[in-house]
Amino acid sequence: MSDLQQSLFLKALRGEPVPRPPIWIMRQAGRYLPEYMKVREAISFNDLCRTPEAACEVTLQPIRRFGFDAAIMFSDILTPLAPMGAEFAFGNGGPQLARPLRDERDFAALRTYPSLDGVPFVAEAIRLMKRELGDKTPLIGFAGAPFTLATYLIEGGGSKNYENLKTVLYSRPELLRGLLEKLGDQILDYLRMQVAAGVDAVQLFDTWGGILHPADYAALVLPVVRRIMDGLKDTGVPRIYFLKGSTPYNHLLRDLDVECCGIDWTQDLSLAIAQLPGKAVQGNLDPLCLFGSAEQIRDRALAICRQGAAAPGHVFNLGHGILPQASLTAVQTLVETVQGFTKE
Amino acid sequence: MSDLQQSLFLKALRGEPVPRPPIWIMRQAGRYLPEYMKVREAISFNDLCRTPEAACEVTLQPIRRFGFDAAIMFSDILTPLAPMGAEFAFGNGGPQLARPLRDERDFAALRTYPSLDGVPFVAEAIRLMKRELGDKTPLIGFAGAPFTLATYLIEGGGSKNYENLKTVLYSRPELLRGLLEKLGDQILDYLRMQVAAGVDAVQLFDTWGGILHPADYAALVLPVVRRIMDGLKDTGVPRIYFLKGSTPYNHLLRDLDVECCGIDWTQDLSLAIAQLPGKAVQGNLDPLCLFGSAEQIRDRALAICRQGAAAPGHVFNLGHGILPQASLTAVQTLVETVQGFTKE
Repeated sequence: MSDLQQSLFLKALRGEPVPRPPIWIMRQAGRYLPEYMKVREAISFNDLCRTPEAACEVTLQPIRRFGFDAAIMFSDILTPLAPMGAEFAFGNGGPQLARPLRDERDFAALRTYPSLDGVPFVAEAIRLMKRELGDKTPLIGFAGAPFTLATYLIEGGGSKNYENLKTVLYSRPELLRGLLEKLGDQILDYLRMQVAAGVDAVQLFDTWGGILHPADYAALVLPVVRRIMDGLKDTGVPRIYFLKGSTPYNHLLRDLDVECCGIDWTQDLSLAIAQLPGKAVQGNLDPLCLFGSAEQIRDRALAICRQGAAAPGHVFNLGHGILPQASLTAVQTLVETVQGFTKE
Repeated sequence: MSDLQQSLFLKALRGEPVPRPPIWIMRQAGRYLPEYMKVREAISFNDLCRTPEAACEVTLQPIRRFGFDAAIMFSDILTPLAPMGAEFAFGNGGPQLARPLRDERDFAALRTYPSLDGVPFVAEAIRLMKRELGDKTPLIGFAGAPFTLATYLIEGGGSKNYENLKTVLYSRPELLRGLLEKLGDQILDYLRMQVAAGVDAVQLFDTWGGILHPADYAALVLPVVRRIMDGLKDTGVPRIYFLKGSTPYNHLLRDLDVECCGIDWTQDLSLAIAQLPGKAVQGNLDPLCLFGSAEQIRDRALAICRQGAAAPGHVFNLGHGILPQASLTAVQTLVETVQGFTKE
């Protein structure tokens, strides 16, 4: 097996014994890093996602500075939607779609496409990143999960109450199902393309999955997630499903065929591990803990490391993305704590 | 026993058999009602909370229009904070505190007070409401829970990530505990004053309790909730605790001495009932379901009624407050469905 396959990250995802949990953090290539902000002075967020050399550079930045145990390709969950016919503008108020999708005709107009043709810069960026990372640091590919993408498409951006999405859900659920299935087809193709280009693991981000009744989650969201994950199985790369606010649905995830589930910070990791037998877990420090004292960061990170040791595998992470205001010193404290931990 | 004690609402809270669940909905006296908007043309929100006649009028409006099975006194969770020294301004962007509380000195400056002296208009409003409601419709008193109030005080208003609150939590947790205890003293006094003035049940709203790790919830939030609820026990009025996003904490609420727990819409009601043995439950329709079709509203409301029948008592409600954009027809459909339901 290659050195990469022996990395803590891939071993933990496969449930093989490791001396300590590997650590990476969601949005580790991002605005809390001065070197990232420097790059952004010369290039827009959207162009950064579409320019392989620049995307490669910012992907590597947190690895160089902190020595995280995995890199995650720099991109945006909305990037694969543009060739479907839904191009978001990225402004200060968050992503905005000029014409949100609201009805049958809007949904029907969304077109699937071969990912290698539609977003060729993603495969190219992955090849560059892999070359730079070499055999030392595994590279994570990712995509937004269909439900989360659907909320952005229907709301046209972020939302507080998801009124438009829920109007569709509670008046024409079959219409929403059709949209989710179409997005599912595209995302499966998109992730398979990433694997073909060289990523070592994939994560599906379902940031807004946690806003539904479990019966709706089970009927509409989970089947499409399952189809994507099942469709990736033959690639052999470990699959991570991150559903923010997953507590009401954990019992439904038991039978989802993935190597790892992401656990947000509102959950007791020991309980989550018990609810997800046979799976590795990833998480679950509150991103806001990085606003606290070094002592609190250390105490809480160590508590999570100890809890995680009971899982088949544990990848240390935040329970959601790091905030731009987080201090570099706090991140350094966190990385040193986790990398200095030794399982009993 | 008086007619009022034989009301569906109070019987359901006491766990006595009822032919169908009583229904009221959070924020039922509010902006979705044209007659409420009419009142608001002549009086500000803040003045409305402080003017007994006007508060009484808007409390009665939804009872007249829909025949809800309980009334809830019109007020705001932030109202009792003003005499403590923290007066919020209510503008279009939500409540704002000119000088958010951030440190030890700010917290120490908050002063507790006898509620009957500090907010005499609340007791007066309750007496008016009780006179108007008579022996037919019970009146619910309420307060914001200390943790939820603390988030408003520290953030100075609504917040996305609760950065300031969490900075205190993760750097000086004892400071936060002190603030919560002070708020707990005030809120217990405030609710006891409401009971003395005549309310038939009380609800404690913990809208933002669901943003914490369960260990923090257990260490900081729950003890103060418990102290308030225990401190109300001798009044004999049923106590409802509504913790939004409570799934990660339900196991911790098992031993909380309350008659009823509110259940938000992300939860399977049957699972919640199993997790809270001996307690009545209140909920749990998604407020956004009122944006859907009559068929969906009926189907989902009936499903909840059937699930709720397994609890010692079930009060039908939304899983969170009704939105201003909800249609009157949808509310009518909901009320008719629940009031037309008969337990098997």
